[in-house]
Amino acid sequence: MLVVMQHGAAAHEVDRVVQTIVEMGYEARPMPGAQRTAIGLVGNDGRVDSSRIEALPGVARVIHVTQPYKQVSREWRPENTVVTIAPGVSVGGESVLVIGGPCSVESERQIIDAAHIVKEAGGNALRGGAFKPRSSPYSFQGLGKPGLEFLARARAETGLPIVTEAMDPEGARIVAEYADCIQIGARNMQNYSLLKEVGRIGKPVLLKRGMAATINELLLSAEYILAEGNDSVILCERGVRSFDPAARNMFDLTAIPIVHRLSHLPIIADPSHGTGLRDKVIPMARAAVAAGADGVLVEMHPEPDRALSDGAQSLYPDQFTQLVQELRAVAAAIGRDIPAPAGNGVAARG
Amino acid sequence: MLVVMQHGAAAHEVDRVVQTIVEMGYEARPMPGAQRTAIGLVGNDGRVDSSRIEALPGVARVIHVTQPYKQVSREWRPENTVVTIAPGVSVGGESVLVIGGPCSVESERQIIDAAHIVKEAGGNALRGGAFKPRSSPYSFQGLGKPGLEFLARARAETGLPIVTEAMDPEGARIVAEYADCIQIGARNMQNYSLLKEVGRIGKPVLLKRGMAATINELLLSAEYILAEGNDSVILCERGVRSFDPAARNMFDLTAIPIVHRLSHLPIIADPSHGTGLRDKVIPMARAAVAAGADGVLVEMHPEPDRALSDGAQSLYPDQFTQLVQELRAVAAAIGRDIPAPAGNGVAARG
Amino acid sequence: MLVVMQHGAAAHEVDRVVQTIVEMGYEARPMPGAQRTAIGLVGNDGRVDSSRIEALPGVARVIHVTQPYKQVSREWRPENTVVTIAPGVSVGGESVLVIGGPCSVESERQIIDAAHIVKEAGGNALRGGAFKPRSSPYSFQGLGKPGLEFLARARAETGLPIVTEAMDPEGARIVAEYADCIQIGARNMQNYSLLKEVGRIGKPVLLKRGMAATINELLLSAEYILAEGNDSVILCERGVRSFDPAARNMFDLTAIPIVHRLSHLPIIADPSHGTGLRDKVIPMARAAVAAGADGVLVEMHPEPDRALSDGAQSLYPDQFTQLVQELRAVAAAIGRDIPAPAGNGVAARG
Amino acid sequence: MLVVMQHGAAAHEVDRVVQTIVEMGYEARPMPGAQRTAIGLVGNDGRVDSSRIEALPGVARVIHVTQPYKQVSREWRPENTVVTIAPGVSVGGESVLVIGGPCSVESERQIIDAAHIVKEAGGNALRGGAFKPRSSPYSFQGLGKPGLEFLARARAETGLPIVTEAMDPEGARIVAEYADCIQIGARNMQNYSLLKEVGRIGKPVLLKRGMAATINELLLSAEYILAEGNDSVILCERGVRSFDPAARNMFDLTAIPIVHRLSHLPIIADPSHGTGLRDKVIPMARAAVAAGADGVLVEMHPEPDRALSDGAQSLYPDQFTQLVQELRAVAAAIGRDIPAPAGNGVAARG
Repeated sequence: MLVVMQHGAAAHEVDRVVQTIVEMGYEARPMPGAQRTAIGLVGNDGRVDSSRIEALPGVARVIHVTQPYKQVSREWRPENTVVTIAPGVSVGGESVLVIGGPCSVESERQIIDAAHIVKEAGGNALRGGAFKPRSSPYSFQGLGKPGLEFLARARAETGLPIVTEAMDPEGARIVAEYADCIQIGARNMQNYSLLKEVGRIGKPVLLKRGMAATINELLLSAEYILAEGNDSVILCERGVRSFDPAARNMFDLTAIPIVHRLSHLPIIADPSHGTGLRDKVIPMARAAVAAGADGVLVEMHPEPDRALSDGAQSLYPDQFTQLVQELRAVAAAIGRDIPAPAGNGVAARG
Repeated sequence: MLVVMQHGAAAHEVDRVVQTIVEMGYEARPMPGAQRTAIGLVGNDGRVDSSRIEALPGVARVIHVTQPYKQVSREWRPENTVVTIAPGVSVGGESVLVIGGPCSVESERQIIDAAHIVKEAGGNALRGGAFKPRSSPYSFQGLGKPGLEFLARARAETGLPIVTEAMDPEGARIVAEYADCIQIGARNMQNYSLLKEVGRIGKPVLLKRGMAATINELLLSAEYILAEGNDSVILCERGVRSFDPAARNMFDLTAIPIVHRLSHLPIIADPSHGTGLRDKVIPMARAAVAAGADGVLVEMHPEPDRALSDGAQSLYPDQFTQLVQELRAVAAAIGRDIPAPAGNGVAARG
Repeated sequence: MLVVMQHGAAAHEVDRVVQTIVEMGYEARPMPGAQRTAIGLVGNDGRVDSSRIEALPGVARVIHVTQPYKQVSREWRPENTVVTIAPGVSVGGESVLVIGGPCSVESERQIIDAAHIVKEAGGNALRGGAFKPRSSPYSFQGLGKPGLEFLARARAETGLPIVTEAMDPEGARIVAEYADCIQIGARNMQNYSLLKEVGRIGKPVLLKRGMAATINELLLSAEYILAEGNDSVILCERGVRSFDPAARNMFDLTAIPIVHRLSHLPIIADPSHGTGLRDKVIPMARAAVAAGADGVLVEMHPEPDRALSDGAQSLYPDQFTQLVQELRAVAAAIGRDIPAPAGNGVAARG
Repeated sequence: MLVVMQHGAAAHEVDRVVQTIVEMGYEARPMPGAQRTAIGLVGNDGRVDSSRIEALPGVARVIHVTQPYKQVSREWRPENTVVTIAPGVSVGGESVLVIGGPCSVESERQIIDAAHIVKEAGGNALRGGAFKPRSSPYSFQGLGKPGLEFLARARAETGLPIVTEAMDPEGARIVAEYADCIQIGARNMQNYSLLKEVGRIGKPVLLKRGMAATINELLLSAEYILAEGNDSVILCERGVRSFDPAARNMFDLTAIPIVHRLSHLPIIADPSHGTGLRDKVIPMARAAVAAGADGVLVEMHPEPDRALSDGAQSLYPDQFTQLVQELRAVAAAIGRDIPAPAGNGVAARG
């Protein structure tokens, strides 16, 4: 439930609404705005009787949020949320962001090379995993903390902000020391202890849809993060399980306009996992942008044939350049753009 | 298996290959070309021993088709098939076709109005069902033959070719008397008696993917039509079953680049059934074109709120106009175009 | 809607209800019973205003059927329907029926051998396809009419009734000349022309659930048959599409108690297609009976390793014997039984 | 890879194999047995060249495990693993275990009442969640540590061992202080940090299949636990996502014989989550036992209509009694039994 105060409502009127909500056994979240103040009521699992609050002085109206999620809903906040992951690098506005890089950080050389390729091609941020959730305990599990340090050096060299994954609450605190944006992978979409932790940390979060999560569940998982006070959440469609082995996953691009209608949060698309097939990544990235995605997350490896993970779906460097060019044309066709990479003035490649 | 003859192979050499194939117990399909003749071998369920054929005079090489489908595969025919459904209205070339119209033909007035709206908006063909497969025996089942006559009048007035569905072999013969392109619906994708019949009829066929059909099965169903000698087949992605009730179906746009790689047949997309949600049709039609679709099939009703079927996913007339405009921009961004409607010189709207 | 007449209502009162229903634009189906007469109203796609009918003399009460299907619902008929496919061979009562035999009829010798094996093991009916729907046009498509004749000879030798598939309306009429029960396969569950035809033919129908059909859709397809006046319909769970390649299909045994609650029709289970794995057939047949299935349909081939189709999921003859023994024990544990094969006095095996 | 030593191989021969494996860069796991010693090689992601090891003295043979999982495979250990969760309470032998109790621990009274009902009905262990993963952050999240204390009192009163869920590594250490068996829920099946932690803790683990996990992935997740040295793992089928809203999940009972063939680990079934429908729990529990399940996990609440979670799928107390009776009959039909509850001599109720 959302209580919208009248324009010019007095502070003591706001306080009284907050106090009443607390007396009713719920939690109150005052949200002061330029035009008016709103107060969110959270903690309810069903409909709240609002008659007592509607009668309070200064209250303009009460909005009953009809979805099981509250703070992520468009009813709660009608305008788009723009998440800034670094100065000049934002997701959710007019621009479409391109985030590229390898599945895993494999070495300092590899990730710095990747960062330069991404930047020169016109990409806006660097991805790369230091902690890797793998189906088999015997597969490469990532470099861990040294991988984070390599990512930081790649950022220092290119100015590209870093997106990298955390797998548990303790790891999230370590990742947060290095990353500009903490990724929560598909397997952890309903790892609520982790969601709460990244909610408390407060850094931007990239939340990937689970393997067979409904859109409703994706938004509820985002709600866990917002409920901790962190509304810098970027959602990500990355394909879901299906019966057809023709592709690794079924890339559900309809999720993009559906999320845009239900929520104010930005949503990007990952055509690399969404298809699992290198030669399908560019057409499906184009499709994602045409469907309205606020960005794409694409695997690119300096040498895909030597990749320790996901080589078969990673673009070659020249394909990444082609990707950015094609996305620019599609973005322009729907009145959007891909911004030039931020981070000018950083050390030149040596 | 495909036997490619040498450039300038003599007719009697071709005949001898044909004869040998028949002696081996298979069926031979000679395909004369400008540069060379090829002879297809069909009827095998596995690998054929080709040594006897390779040794025949005039044979350049033998191609073993590795897929379970043969004639629909790219290995069999490397260049794109262009299906012409009416003079100047083709699918599978550089242009992207827009096919619009109501789910069902409900009256002469309704379908003629719809045809004018489609044409004025820049659409290229008219859809509308006279025979409707419905889950419930008590739902509106279509007008039947009178519906076909109304479609024919709409074509006479606007010049737009007609795409309409057939549900059984007998109905296919009736539909073929009126339609420019016979649609096989999702529920009938594996109705082999019907597939064989439209194969024999020889008119262009629009084959929709089944509710939970793999891409492999879609191509095998197309093979049934080509195996009868009809290669004017247009495939159609229309969404598949999924666990997420957020949309009516899961629109599998990755099927488009996958089919383009595996087969020479054109593939279009139906965002109306693919999403089941009116406000998702335009963004997902854009996505389909960006993914490389050779056309879109979109439900538009002059008065969706009064539609006897599929009203909730049918565009309003002005949305259809917007659709064509937006698709033109996306098509241009990837180097394609939407052609102006054919059928000039037809009777003006009265 | 169902109009229940008072005990002892007069014939002219029944007639008046029928007439009123017709005047209202619907179809009336009088169903005289031992205790009372009921009149079904069909042809409506939503709720009917029943006030006019409730006020007629002799009417006891009006039941609004809340499901989209009518005549297949438990609301329409509370007691179980028992379908008799041959004298002494019924599905839907206390007994659990075992139907066995090969996927395809391959020769007279093969099907007669199979019939003897089924009978000696204690099976109650013989299955075997003469018309086979196959994904590829180049796979074995069945022997056609000669296959039906071989089935008839197997019946003459063993007394076992025959269940065999029809693929189109014309074929259904041919199959009906030979079969005791006409099977509609999964691919044709929504082939409405075929459903209407077997509804008109009036012989018992075995309707298999489609590859990705909901239970609701299965019941609606059955409604097509009942709507033509044929209520001898046996439903069949045979596994649905899933994301897990561990089995050929996902065998949805929960469908059994769900159907039993929603409908009065019997439901059997096909563990051969439901799993696609020979060594899973026996445990899953046991599970089906424990879940309440009214029968099982199991593939058994005299020589599975030489089968032209479905060899990998067909039981060996001695496994079929073991199957019947294990099912007897499970049936007894839940208070049911597997009847001895009918057809005594037939010609001895020679 | 598994190195099997000759009968009577000397200790220094075993040591040399271990040393060689370590030199090759892998990890060695000696497993002394009554008849012979085997040494597992883990840490490889593909096939290992075994020639060097095969040539060592005392080596009988080398088994290449063909599955991506190693220690959970039948190739690694041919005989069934029996997991003992309390004295006299084991899973994986001839007996079928019945674990019952509410979804959540709601109060001391509720869980003690539930424990008495379970025991009197003949159940073998008590389930109940103190930490509850819920889709919404505003839903009841469990009582936390006090819930664990209430469970411990219920155990003290009835002697029933306790199965309860852990959601993160830190929580697992707390749960392990109270529980006899630590449950990993479906949402956490691929929470690898948690799997490693319960592997290190060493207590029995009940690992539920993920919402859309393949059986292969379930076994790989179990491998994470065994790889840490804990082989007391009980797998649990609890239904997976499907397209059909007729039930909450699709209960994949074929997983039971599939797991039994691929792995030596026991597998139980949860018909409460598997169906989500109270009146389907008993028939599907029967089906699970008939399919070979080593136990069932069933939700029962003293007052389901007042349950804070999962009330609609919880059995009433008298239904739980009926469940155990019916399962006894089905277990007997396949040569198994349900043991009498352990824990005699504990304090009487009241």
